[in-house]
Amino acid sequence: MEEKQKVTMDKIVNLCKNRGFIFPGSDIYGGMGNTWDYGPIGVELKNNIKRAWWKRFVQESPNTYGVDAAILMNPKVWDASGHTQNFSDPKMDCKSCKERFRADNLIEEHSHGNVSAEGMTNEQMEKYIADNKVKCPHCGNFNWTPIRQFKLMFETSRGTVDGEKDIVYLRPETCQGEYVNFLNVQRSMRAKVPFAIAQIGKSFRNEITPGNFIFRTIEFEQMELQMFCREENSFEAYENYKKQAQQFLLDLNICPEHLKFHDHEKLAFYAKAACDIFYLFPMGWNELNGIHHRSTHDLSRHQEFSGKSMAYLDPVTNEKFIPTVVEYSIGADRLVLAILCEAYDEETLEGGDTRVVMHFHPALAPFKVAILPLQKNLSEKAREVYALLSKQFMCEYDEAGSIGKRYRREDEIGTPYCVTVDFDSLEDDTVTVRDRDSMKQERVKIDDLTDYIAKRITF
Amino acid sequence: MEEKQKVTMDKIVNLCKNRGFIFPGSDIYGGMGNTWDYGPIGVELKNNIKRAWWKRFVQESPNTYGVDAAILMNPKVWDASGHTQNFSDPKMDCKSCKERFRADNLIEEHSHGNVSAEGMTNEQMEKYIADNKVKCPHCGNFNWTPIRQFKLMFETSRGTVDGEKDIVYLRPETCQGEYVNFLNVQRSMRAKVPFAIAQIGKSFRNEITPGNFIFRTIEFEQMELQMFCREENSFEAYENYKKQAQQFLLDLNICPEHLKFHDHEKLAFYAKAACDIFYLFPMGWNELNGIHHRSTHDLSRHQEFSGKSMAYLDPVTNEKFIPTVVEYSIGADRLVLAILCEAYDEETLEGGDTRVVMHFHPALAPFKVAILPLQKNLSEKAREVYALLSKQFMCEYDEAGSIGKRYRREDEIGTPYCVTVDFDSLEDDTVTVRDRDSMKQERVKIDDLTDYIAKRITF
Repeated sequence: MEEKQKVTMDKIVNLCKNRGFIFPGSDIYGGMGNTWDYGPIGVELKNNIKRAWWKRFVQESPNTYGVDAAILMNPKVWDASGHTQNFSDPKMDCKSCKERFRADNLIEEHSHGNVSAEGMTNEQMEKYIADNKVKCPHCGNFNWTPIRQFKLMFETSRGTVDGEKDIVYLRPETCQGEYVNFLNVQRSMRAKVPFAIAQIGKSFRNEITPGNFIFRTIEFEQMELQMFCREENSFEAYENYKKQAQQFLLDLNICPEHLKFHDHEKLAFYAKAACDIFYLFPMGWNELNGIHHRSTHDLSRHQEFSGKSMAYLDPVTNEKFIPTVVEYSIGADRLVLAILCEAYDEETLEGGDTRVVMHFHPALAPFKVAILPLQKNLSEKAREVYALLSKQFMCEYDEAGSIGKRYRREDEIGTPYCVTVDFDSLEDDTVTVRDRDSMKQERVKIDDLTDYIAKRITF
Repeated sequence: MEEKQKVTMDKIVNLCKNRGFIFPGSDIYGGMGNTWDYGPIGVELKNNIKRAWWKRFVQESPNTYGVDAAILMNPKVWDASGHTQNFSDPKMDCKSCKERFRADNLIEEHSHGNVSAEGMTNEQMEKYIADNKVKCPHCGNFNWTPIRQFKLMFETSRGTVDGEKDIVYLRPETCQGEYVNFLNVQRSMRAKVPFAIAQIGKSFRNEITPGNFIFRTIEFEQMELQMFCREENSFEAYENYKKQAQQFLLDLNICPEHLKFHDHEKLAFYAKAACDIFYLFPMGWNELNGIHHRSTHDLSRHQEFSGKSMAYLDPVTNEKFIPTVVEYSIGADRLVLAILCEAYDEETLEGGDTRVVMHFHPALAPFKVAILPLQKNLSEKAREVYALLSKQFMCEYDEAGSIGKRYRREDEIGTPYCVTVDFDSLEDDTVTVRDRDSMKQERVKIDDLTDYIAKRITF
């Protein structure tokens, strides 16, 4: 627990707001819980991250099928998954100041992360808090209510005839969308076990204590897949996804020292194995993604609750069995946060100036190229270059201020290439291309620009 | 109203379910209201449509900025927008069979579309229904309750201290995400009026009568932008978006005869102009997208309710003014449905067989290429080709059944190119590329395949 991120959360939050990455949700109304809106730069970053994940785990994976399921699902789904009964947090209220806290968080913060509340019963947590006189982080008193369970699913209702209302939930996880579509995907795609169903989509949790910027929010996006396999191949699949999950992060230029595997200390009764990959966020090591061996639990429960057989008939052996599930899941917003932290740098330049630069993997960079006319009277030529390149890439066009200032602005949003249009461009149809990281410049023909950039931004 | 789509909704719905485009939501539980899940083929189609829209309206538009705002917004947003007070449908219940209907729908269906209820008051609608003895479409009786207003926003609540709950809403439209971010986007991007903010995202409406497959659903995705401009340029912007909206649809290969402009008969009190583009769906002409001149209404309301000045300071003239808004909005799911209808064809082949073929624009096709080994013992070579191409494109790999059958399967999901790997491929590293539309075949070097396909699928 000694390691520290070089960048503070404050710096990230400020950069994000000032440079159009991420704004507080409903900002002009003083915000809304812990919601965040992606701005013009952030939406490109997030979309590029989602695209890179989809490319790796769906496009390049012959036995993986994507879906995009509805957020509102039949409430029986949540009976089957156990969420209706069990999806709640243990909370305690401070009777002095009326603030509410999660008991497990109180323990973990009080012990500076040395005691894990994972797997503790409510009685064990109450005892720890009493024995250690854990005080209210807000008012400093020791005056707790007993633990009560707080439901984490957002409820809404579907209006029906006669004024009756049917309760429906905002999904608290996307994976049920894969389970309920197991039969439809298998049949329509003639899929053979082992195969996976993948999804990117929003989930909602009525968290009492969201925080750490976009790390924990009431509304968040997941990128995850459920691999359906034979029991005897399931541990190989589990190990395989651990490797793939790690490799994906490394390929996005996340430094290996900022990643570590963390095995779960206590498993759900049905689970055979579970681990997370932790990332060194500014607030410390915390979960970025998880790989879970879930046995046949999920499909069995849906078979029980829906009355539909979830058995797979092996076309070669004629065996019928309920597949075992291995889950790999990563939070899109958490990955955005990790990528932001990882990319951030403050560099001292020759002459003593510093520049803030976001060293994004070029495939993730919000803008691939900025087109900068050296002077305003070169804007016609520069607009031509912009029109050419914007057919292929997200581009910025900027003609305000000195070239140095414009480079600094592009550095702050991580634009890998700046194209300067100057008077020679009018004569010989060449431009100067400046590299974000090395700051080196190169003269390139306008006709070659598309290829020049395209081959440097692949993932 | 004489025109008819060549394809029926039944055919589209069946194809979608059987071939992995779109499944009923929560299907194994008997569905869930009117929700739909995109399957492995459908999610690619929808993503390609979203990408094409973003490319055209954000990437290639120098003064348009994307955002991705939270679905859960501060409830004051909906006070400002008027939704808390006014967003409801006029409904009548049949006292005989207890079914519930929208009064305006009853009138429009009874008159076969010849009478529009747009702009009628509740009293006028009740009078029309009484005068014309409009019967219940479900049981045939004439036994109505008076009209009552039915709220269309889904309500949920954010759990807070002391068991109190704060009501929050699932956004019924995405555009408020642009309005509340007007200041943050303008400042962080140093944007100059006229500029637009664009967004793709989900919205939710507690519709009483969803239907027509994915045409009207309780959960749907919008692609829209809000252009902020000076009053004196606003009608030019309005006309410009009408043209651009139409051109976008034509460029996606939608036949001009299936599109028509429809001006709104009655405008909201603040609106200066409003029109829709209608598409000839299987159930008839209906709204696909809208272009609305909204005056300064939206920003003025947010200024009033938030207390934050929404004025823009022109850096050249030093004038301060609240920009006028022109909105262009298109339903992503409706466009998916239009694209499905448009692409569908049944062709009689030489020899009398028919094929079902989806003539998608290649940029929208779910898979760009299918790799088909002529025989199973060619699968090693075919897998190499798959590995090569799947780095660039969504590809299918299929080795089951005769080549003819495999072509038919690819036709049904609209794969523009089929690559057959045969014994000659082992010798000379060439493959046969078969074109979906012309069914012509061409021999292509494996090394040239990526370029061959890439240049044929651009948008």
